[in-house]
This record gives sequence, structure tokens and C-alpha cells, in this order.
Amino acid sequence: MELIEICKKAKKVKYEIQCLTTKEKNDALLAVADKLVAEADSIIAANAKDYERGVSNGMHKGLLDRLLLDKKRIEAMAEGLRQVAALPDPIGEVIDSFSRPNGLQIKKVRVPMGVIGIIYEARPNVTADAFALTFKAGNAVVLKGGSDAIDSNIQIANVMRAALSECGINPDAIQLIEDTDRAVTTKFMQMNEYIDVLIPRGSARLINAVVENSTIPVIETGTGNCHIYVDKDADIDKAIPIIINAKTQRIGVCNAAESLVVHEDIKDKFLPLFEKAMNEHNVEIRGDEESRKLMNSAVSATEEDFGKEFLDYIISVKTVKNVDEAIDHINKYNTSHSDAIVTENEETAKRFLERVDSACVYVNASTRFTDGFEFGFGAEIGISTQKLHARGPMGLKELTSYKYQIVGEGQIR
Amino acid sequence: MELIEICKKAKKVKYEIQCLTTKEKNDALLAVADKLVAEADSIIAANAKDYERGVSNGMHKGLLDRLLLDKKRIEAMAEGLRQVAALPDPIGEVIDSFSRPNGLQIKKVRVPMGVIGIIYEARPNVTADAFALTFKAGNAVVLKGGSDAIDSNIQIANVMRAALSECGINPDAIQLIEDTDRAVTTKFMQMNEYIDVLIPRGSARLINAVVENSTIPVIETGTGNCHIYVDKDADIDKAIPIIINAKTQRIGVCNAAESLVVHEDIKDKFLPLFEKAMNEHNVEIRGDEESRKLMNSAVSATEEDFGKEFLDYIISVKTVKNVDEAIDHINKYNTSHSDAIVTENEETAKRFLERVDSACVYVNASTRFTDGFEFGFGAEIGISTQKLHARGPMGLKELTSYKYQIVGEGQIR
Repeated sequence: MELIEICKKAKKVKYEIQCLTTKEKNDALLAVADKLVAEADSIIAANAKDYERGVSNGMHKGLLDRLLLDKKRIEAMAEGLRQVAALPDPIGEVIDSFSRPNGLQIKKVRVPMGVIGIIYEARPNVTADAFALTFKAGNAVVLKGGSDAIDSNIQIANVMRAALSECGINPDAIQLIEDTDRAVTTKFMQMNEYIDVLIPRGSARLINAVVENSTIPVIETGTGNCHIYVDKDADIDKAIPIIINAKTQRIGVCNAAESLVVHEDIKDKFLPLFEKAMNEHNVEIRGDEESRKLMNSAVSATEEDFGKEFLDYIISVKTVKNVDEAIDHINKYNTSHSDAIVTENEETAKRFLERVDSACVYVNASTRFTDGFEFGFGAEIGISTQKLHARGPMGLKELTSYKYQIVGEGQIR
Repeated sequence: MELIEICKKAKKVKYEIQCLTTKEKNDALLAVADKLVAEADSIIAANAKDYERGVSNGMHKGLLDRLLLDKKRIEAMAEGLRQVAALPDPIGEVIDSFSRPNGLQIKKVRVPMGVIGIIYEARPNVTADAFALTFKAGNAVVLKGGSDAIDSNIQIANVMRAALSECGINPDAIQLIEDTDRAVTTKFMQMNEYIDVLIPRGSARLINAVVENSTIPVIETGTGNCHIYVDKDADIDKAIPIIINAKTQRIGVCNAAESLVVHEDIKDKFLPLFEKAMNEHNVEIRGDEESRKLMNSAVSATEEDFGKEFLDYIISVKTVKNVDEAIDHINKYNTSHSDAIVTENEETAKRFLERVDSACVYVNASTRFTDGFEFGFGAEIGISTQKLHARGPMGLKELTSYKYQIVGEGQIR
């Protein structure tokens, strides 16, 4: 189908989807989950085509693993849908209500966005995840997945659409752009007449391309150059486990730590212990001059290292004279994602919490907690690093807008 | 100064501005107000240059009036600043707070956006208004006003900056881009490394240009193709005053009505009265075939007329069979700004409130109430017609973001 037809259908169907009851939405999510499991063989067969093409194109092993679907992974996709069905419906919530001296009654009510566009890479599970969250929040969704997963995505979308039809719901609630031509993707980003918001999910390169080309409002997600600052008043018994966790528990994620900032008054005591811990976890240390005096294994950090999201077993180290220098360093190099201080000093903690300009600022905890599930949202479409609309982990509420409903008795100005 | 220098300074100063106390901000706003009045002569002299250039360039009379500053208007600008000083400070509000089973304490706290860019036309009062609101919400602001008002804007900005300096506040909290080259404006819209959000204020053409060219998140404001739907169960004694008010009280504003939608069961009774009222107010009626049978003075409405923001003494009329047809018509042609139903039927009103996809949906009231002051926000930077971030009237709160502050005791994942 032509892109323009897809977008027009999405705009049309959004008025139906936003009127569905909570029960209708939940029943549909459960039906889609069941059908994905029932049709697992056809999905696996489609996925095999993508996988073979990936192998013969010399696709990287990690990417091939992300691409692969088996029964277990399809069951996990279905389970994700069921979990979303179990979450409270955000739509219809009265966020605020007030009356005016002229008697007008004003209610601020949570409503769906309308049509959400999702642009993502070769992870076919996103096809089901993105549908579940956008649909539960009352939206129609238009998906543009990576071309490497196109056969899987087409089959998953077809199965989900069939399940919606069986529930008596217009299947256009979920549409997939099947044309893998890059020009079509760029055109999609310009469809601001039909698409209310665009959420890119994937690498920094993908996200930058969307930010640069889109005329649709974008929610930027993802990139995380996260810092741990070990203050002079830090409890070292907390600092070491936090850094090991934030750096090494999962290296390829946006909430992993990429940089240590350390107060000069504690560096003599702390850095040797830090170096030992990093060596034990095979983490390369790239330190400034001061820090390298205390760590034999550290190599020299370049300016570029401080601004880099390594997503690897590498960490940069910066020594500072006080908390303000730490805050300045972090605000200069971070991506406004997540940063932490380790300190027992409440005043220093307060200053850090207030002045570090990030979505999530931590005292004495790992940055790895920046996550919709860890925050108790029950779901996550991504982590926003912009300030407009939503910041930090985005769950169902962050996929909604609001409207004002005003009731009068003939009031005029 | 070079654009890049301005943007870098703004990014740097935002960390200072977001830490100002409420008292520091209010004192500064009052000092700026006083200095604008004290320096009125120098501002009027600068404005005279703009005005003379406008006259010799054959500028339209209405635009010349918007450009003109006199003592009274400067006093009004100052009064606006004082009103903003009197408003509650939105910054620091704890929007939400919760703890997790692992003991993490999470607070969602209202914080400034950071740097706000405002692009506007030849209305020099916006220079002061935009500063007042963005500053009170803890932001640095970079202003790009219309070239026709450049001398006025430079002088106003200089006076305001001087007042800030006298208060011990970094004057870079307000910066004006003095270069009137259009290429500089386009480059400004691409400064997403430094500017957190861009708000265009002005004509649909200006706003579209910003939406198309900006890589910075934009809040779209302004265009309003507002409808009044007169239902079969309408109280005509309410309907006529509401339409007269919404159409004629001020024709050039975005919350003025541009279109009447009328139920066929009431048209025989209602349309002759409507025609009489419109004739008395010199409003041209452009009606569909059904409606013209009942109104001799009406001309034929084209498809284009239904989608048009006339901003003039013109109204389109569409006849419908039921409320759902009215809702479909409105959702097809509106700009998601403000639409109203006139009805005594509660169920019909509820259906309209829920299904019309606009920022503000009214029952038995004029669309002219869509306004930050009328809503009781005490201020207004514009009316958002997008769904991301803010919708409808935007006051101080809508110029803020939030951050999560998380306090732990050494938690790791």
C-alpha cells in the first residue's frame, strides 16, 4: 500500500480506537497474544527468511541474535502483551478540574495522542511491544521496522491484525510500512498532517536521522552517557558495588555508566580499589592525569572519551576539586539521561540532585534503575532524553495527551 | 555576536538561571519593569526608526499599529512583567513521589526547560512578554523577532539586560539575535545542541516554516479553525449570543469561530435567526446547499471554505443529520484548537466532549474562552495545537519540564 494511504487510514481509525473501552482493549490484547502463540510456526518461518538473508549478508552476530525468533521468544512477546493488558488504563483520567468565576467548569482529561509512528531497527519483538503500549493508551500505530526484519514484521503484523478483526476491531489500529526504501522512511517523517508523534527506537544514528528529518513532533530516546560521581564524603562500601553494577551488569544499555567522576580528597583511598574492581571485570580505564598517578593500568583519556557512550567494557575517569566541578563536568558531557552521586553528605546530595541536568539523578544508587519497570510503570516504550513532553522512562501515561472539556450555560466574553 | 556564541552563552547561563530563588526572579522582573518605564524615551526613539522604515516600505496599517510603541504601551509591557512577578513560581513543585519495593525513593520534580527559543513577528511587546514568562519559569531565552521591529527589540533587550545586571543576574538570561538575515533564523532552528525548545509565535506561515526547518523540539501554537455546532436540542437563546460572540467579538484571533455546523432538525427555526444576527454584524455567510435554502444572503461554500481560518467577517455553514456527522465534519476540518456544541441534551454533549479531537471542547460556551487568562493561568505564551507536551493555553507550567530525583542507600540491580 502507498504510504499516504497508510497514513490516511491511521488518521481515520484513530477516532475509533480512542473510543474503545478498557475491556475492549484488554480483550484485544489478550486475543493478539493468543494468536501470536498459535501462529508461532508461520512467524518462525518468516523469520527464517530474514535470518538466512542476514547470514548471507554477513550480519553481525549480536544483530543476528536480536533478529532471531523461536517459540520461547514468541511466548515472551505474548506475555508482554498480557502484562500490558493487566495495566491500568490511563485514558479518561481527570488530571485536573476547576471552575472559573464566570461559572465555566473546566476539566483536564487524559486522552490518546492519536496516531503514533514508531521507527525502529531489526528487532521484530518491537513490532508487538510497540503495538501493545500504543494501543492500550488508545492510539493507532504506524510501524516502520528495519528492512532486515521485514519478513518477520509483515507476518507478525498480519497475525496481530487478524486477531483484531476477530475481536471486531478495525485492524488498521496497527499498520506496518512494508516498503523498505529509505526514501519512504524519510517521507514518513514528514507526514505531520496524519501522525501526531514519532518515536524512534534504536541507535543514536537512527535517532539523529529522525530528529533531523522529521516535521512530526519527535520524542527522542535512548543515548546515555551516564556518570557516577564519588564524593569526598562517599561511603566506599556503597561506591564500589554501585560502579561495578552500573558499568558491568549490562554494558550495551543506555543506563549503563560510562564515566567515573571522583573528588580529589578521596581519590587516594578510592581509586586503587576502583582499579582492582574494574580489572576484575575486564573494564578498560581511561583516566585523566591525576587519576592515572594512582592507577597503573589506566590509559590516558582524551577529551572525546568524556563525551562518549562506550557501550563497552570501558570507563573514563575524571578527578575534580569539589561537587560543583563535578556538576559542571557532568552537565557538559552527559546526555541528560542518568547520573549518580555517592555521598553520605545530605547537603552535597541535595546540590547534586538539583543542579545536574538529567532526566534521572541518583543519590547512592546505580543508574541502571532508569527503566519503566524498575520505576513501577509496568511497561516502557523508551527513555526520553529530551525535555519536551516526557522525560526519563516512558510508560503508558507518556503515550497520552490531554484535552480541556469546558461546560457552560451560555457564557460569552 | 555570532549565532553560535549566543547559543553557547544561553546553554551556559541556563544552569545559573535555573538555580535562582523565587525572590531573586521576582525582584528582577520588577526591576526590569521599572527600567522599561524609566527608559521609555529611548525605546520610543528606537521604535520611531522601525515605524518610519515601515511607513516608507508601505507596511500595512494593522501591522504598523502592532509595531507602534508609546508611553502607554510601554507601561502596559511593564505591567505585564509585574503580573508575572505576582504569579506562583512553578519550579520545584513535587509533581509525584513514590517509593519502590527495593527502598528507592523517587520524586518527580518540576524543573525549567533550560533554554527556550522564541521566533516571532514585528510585535516588540513580545520581547518583554516572552522574557517575563520564560524567566519566571527558570529558563534562559533566545529571542528572534521580526526584522521590521529590530531597532525596538534591540533597545528593549538592552534595557532589560541592564536591569538584570543591576540585580546581579547574568544578563545572558535574555539574548536577542540581532542579525536579520533569514539564513541565520534557519540556522537558529537547527541549534538543538543548545536550545531545548522552540516556540514560534505568529502567522500560520511563520509556524509552518519553523515546523519544517527545526531540528529543535517545537511547540506549535496558534492556528484555529473553530466550530460551533448547534444541535437539534440546542437552546437557541444560548446559541445566537454564543455565535455572535465567537464570530465577531474579535475577528483576528485564533479562538474566534470560523464555521457553524447545524443539525437539520433545528435548521428551519435556527438559520433565519442566525442569518439576521450575522447580517447585523456584517458577517458574510458561506453555506452548503441545504442551509442556503433558508438564507437568502448566503453565498455558496466551497470545500476550501470549510478548512479555512478566515480571521475575517466570514463564516461557513454546514448542515448535518446528527451529532456524529457533526463530529466527523469538525474532526476533518478543524485545527484541533477549540470547538463548541450548543445543546441541552447531556448525552449528546458528552459524546461531543469525548469525540471531538481538539485542545478545548466546549458545551454551551463561546470558543473565545480558550486563553491562558480566561483559564486562570495568569499568563499565556500561546495556545498549543499539538498533542505533545502541552495542549491548549500555555502558562508558566507549560514552560517547564520535570526530572526524577532518586535517593537510595546503595541499591544495585
